[in-house]
Amino acid sequence: MAVDAKNTFGASEDAPKILVPGETGFWVNTGHALPSGTNAVIMIEHINIIDKATVEIEAPVFPWQHVRKMGEDIVATKLLFPRGHQINAYAMGALLSGGVFQVQVYQKPRVLIIPTGSELVEWHETSPEQLVPGQVLESNSTVLKALCRDNGADADRHPMLKDDLETITQAVDQAVKGAYDMVCIIGGSSAGSEDFARPVMTSLGRVMVHGVTMMPGKPVLMGEISGKPVFGIPGYPVSAIVAFEQFVGPLLRAMQKLPPLEVRTETVSLARKIASKLGQDEFLRVKIGSVDGRLIASQLPRGSGSITTLTEADGIIQIPRDMEGISENQTPTARLLKPLSAIKNTLVITGSHDNTLDLLADQMRRHHDGINISSSHVGSMGGIMAVRNNACHLAGTHLLDPEDGSYNVSYIKKYLPVCRCAW
Amino acid sequence: MAVDAKNTFGASEDAPKILVPGETGFWVNTGHALPSGTNAVIMIEHINIIDKATVEIEAPVFPWQHVRKMGEDIVATKLLFPRGHQINAYAMGALLSGGVFQVQVYQKPRVLIIPTGSELVEWHETSPEQLVPGQVLESNSTVLKALCRDNGADADRHPMLKDDLETITQAVDQAVKGAYDMVCIIGGSSAGSEDFARPVMTSLGRVMVHGVTMMPGKPVLMGEISGKPVFGIPGYPVSAIVAFEQFVGPLLRAMQKLPPLEVRTETVSLARKIASKLGQDEFLRVKIGSVDGRLIASQLPRGSGSITTLTEADGIIQIPRDMEGISENQTPTARLLKPLSAIKNTLVITGSHDNTLDLLADQMRRHHDGINISSSHVGSMGGIMAVRNNACHLAGTHLLDPEDGSYNVSYIKKYLPVCRCAW
Repeated sequence: MAVDAKNTFGASEDAPKILVPGETGFWVNTGHALPSGTNAVIMIEHINIIDKATVEIEAPVFPWQHVRKMGEDIVATKLLFPRGHQINAYAMGALLSGGVFQVQVYQKPRVLIIPTGSELVEWHETSPEQLVPGQVLESNSTVLKALCRDNGADADRHPMLKDDLETITQAVDQAVKGAYDMVCIIGGSSAGSEDFARPVMTSLGRVMVHGVTMMPGKPVLMGEISGKPVFGIPGYPVSAIVAFEQFVGPLLRAMQKLPPLEVRTETVSLARKIASKLGQDEFLRVKIGSVDGRLIASQLPRGSGSITTLTEADGIIQIPRDMEGISENQTPTARLLKPLSAIKNTLVITGSHDNTLDLLADQMRRHHDGINISSSHVGSMGGIMAVRNNACHLAGTHLLDPEDGSYNVSYIKKYLPVCRCAW
Repeated sequence: MAVDAKNTFGASEDAPKILVPGETGFWVNTGHALPSGTNAVIMIEHINIIDKATVEIEAPVFPWQHVRKMGEDIVATKLLFPRGHQINAYAMGALLSGGVFQVQVYQKPRVLIIPTGSELVEWHETSPEQLVPGQVLESNSTVLKALCRDNGADADRHPMLKDDLETITQAVDQAVKGAYDMVCIIGGSSAGSEDFARPVMTSLGRVMVHGVTMMPGKPVLMGEISGKPVFGIPGYPVSAIVAFEQFVGPLLRAMQKLPPLEVRTETVSLARKIASKLGQDEFLRVKIGSVDGRLIASQLPRGSGSITTLTEADGIIQIPRDMEGISENQTPTARLLKPLSAIKNTLVITGSHDNTLDLLADQMRRHHDGINISSSHVGSMGGIMAVRNNACHLAGTHLLDPEDGSYNVSYIKKYLPVCRCAW
């Protein structure tokens, strides 16, 4: 109820004041303008309604109680955002509230992704059983399209092209003359006889970089055609992703003045020492487990053909090109690929592969959201080494091996007291 | 070139071995299957081509050099992902490579957002100049729609509704009978005479919670109609956002088995002590600056009508309901709303408001991507207090005030040695 505060002065439990709706008090709702002649609001909870024409209050209010001044929020001429500000949900609200209905924005870059390679097969035109040796399901374009979107860009996929200089040249030429702001040619970025990304780039524009001292992703190609960036992306899945994340993604973000992707890093200990080639930065995929309060990283296979080394990885350690490796007593920094909380809620199992571990991991997710199982398949010896280095929660040759079964099961039971699984 | 390794044994710089393309060596490209009879690959860089029929090698290769075994990546029967795994770019690649072309996913929840309130005006049907006192531009639905999307859901906006029990009831009834999985009624969630969210919910289903001991966002309403969650969201912009983020967002994520939004927190020091009401959890918006290596938080205005207190905030400190406030020597935890790197690259200015600071902030962004200016307008006295507590980089009544101008400018120059701005 809106009132003139001075009409309430002196009200108390013993001596309540009477207000007359429509005369000395006015029903209002949150957000309404104050009726003229009033300067304070009493909450409905603090009013005794006697009848339609009489209400009673037992406490005074002070002027402007429960009243918001107009313009509390946004003062005219105030700068809402400096240029280059990313518009999120909050910002939309501030713009609309401030009467700003139109803003200039950077256009989303449009990227054309061209998968090339005579060995490639369209996944939606085949079934895995029909593949013959030497054929590869084309998956890189799907991955890069999703990564483009993660970096604020719109990407289209060109139909797969065979290793043929002329058709690839034509496709790239059309793309840069059209609406695309960037082209990524996947495959054929090395120096083989059927690697056409470089000849295409040379004939239409210029090559700026061919080959980077990093692994995976070494044979990446960067150039420019008619002022538009063109990339040659290596065809091995992990190489493609590393090349994209190191060069393409950051460029896409810069084109939109987006801040760099926020990367979360943590200092980790190593389960065992890691060797690395001198002369190239290595992006090493690792599993990370929180064991006895320390984050322990163990190396995953290095093959750049294995995309599962990325999906299984919890983090990436970048070993600089002037280092021959990292020893057990060093504590490198890992970029986390999963939330730290997920890593901390993971049971780390190391040893030889056992399918029951996969089943267990799946059952765990059914019953215990947020608790994960991470198993590295490094063989029995690797498991024993991991135990020695306190690098896992659970190790062994087989989960139910009678020799170490008691250790394993008791450990799991201790770690997961709420476990309702059958075993 | 693919070869049988034993044909290369003994090759050296002094005694190179000759290979005959098509007979003892076969040109292959990365990713190709090995021709039969070969078991290793020599890189083109290590081959001297004499003529079409003769090439020379100066070093032996070992069997399986540069050869990837088929199935290196994915072993049949291996579990790619346990259930409830979020499919990102990497995961798409692993699924396609593994021959999995179809997966069962959780449906994106569909949310209907119904803005209510007779005081509301459609922003796209008006201009800020036409507003009369008491009218409010409807912006909450746009904000909540964006927040729904951030939480993986699809949201539609219902046209604005006046404060009328019947039309609101009808709209909610239609939504829950239709394809929507959730309804959010914005406005009218309190107990005023024209607050209809509760009566609507009571008539169609049941109210489960009305009012939560938190601020902002206290009068939030949660209920269920025909088994579908229905929320009454308070109409003040910050209250709406807090209510959404505390209850609606987490529920949307749980419906899709998504992990909770990853929140980044940091321990902060306070610029000055903060009082808080007993009995309610308070979500306090703060500016955070990195001053002399410490993260210093200063309170922004508490008004829940001020969405700019959220867009200007670097973080949120949650003060528990059993605390009367936080003293200067406590170090509470703040949830960061901006990347830590952005906070560390921010020049913190405290004092009375000066429009030149806004211009400066804008110019800074034009010339120095990644360096921000954050100015709190707390009056001259606030600025002096901040200096005393080392809570800012720069303080003063006016930037060019002759009395402290020298200190200010020298500090900026020190902080931003690359500055190319005109002043």
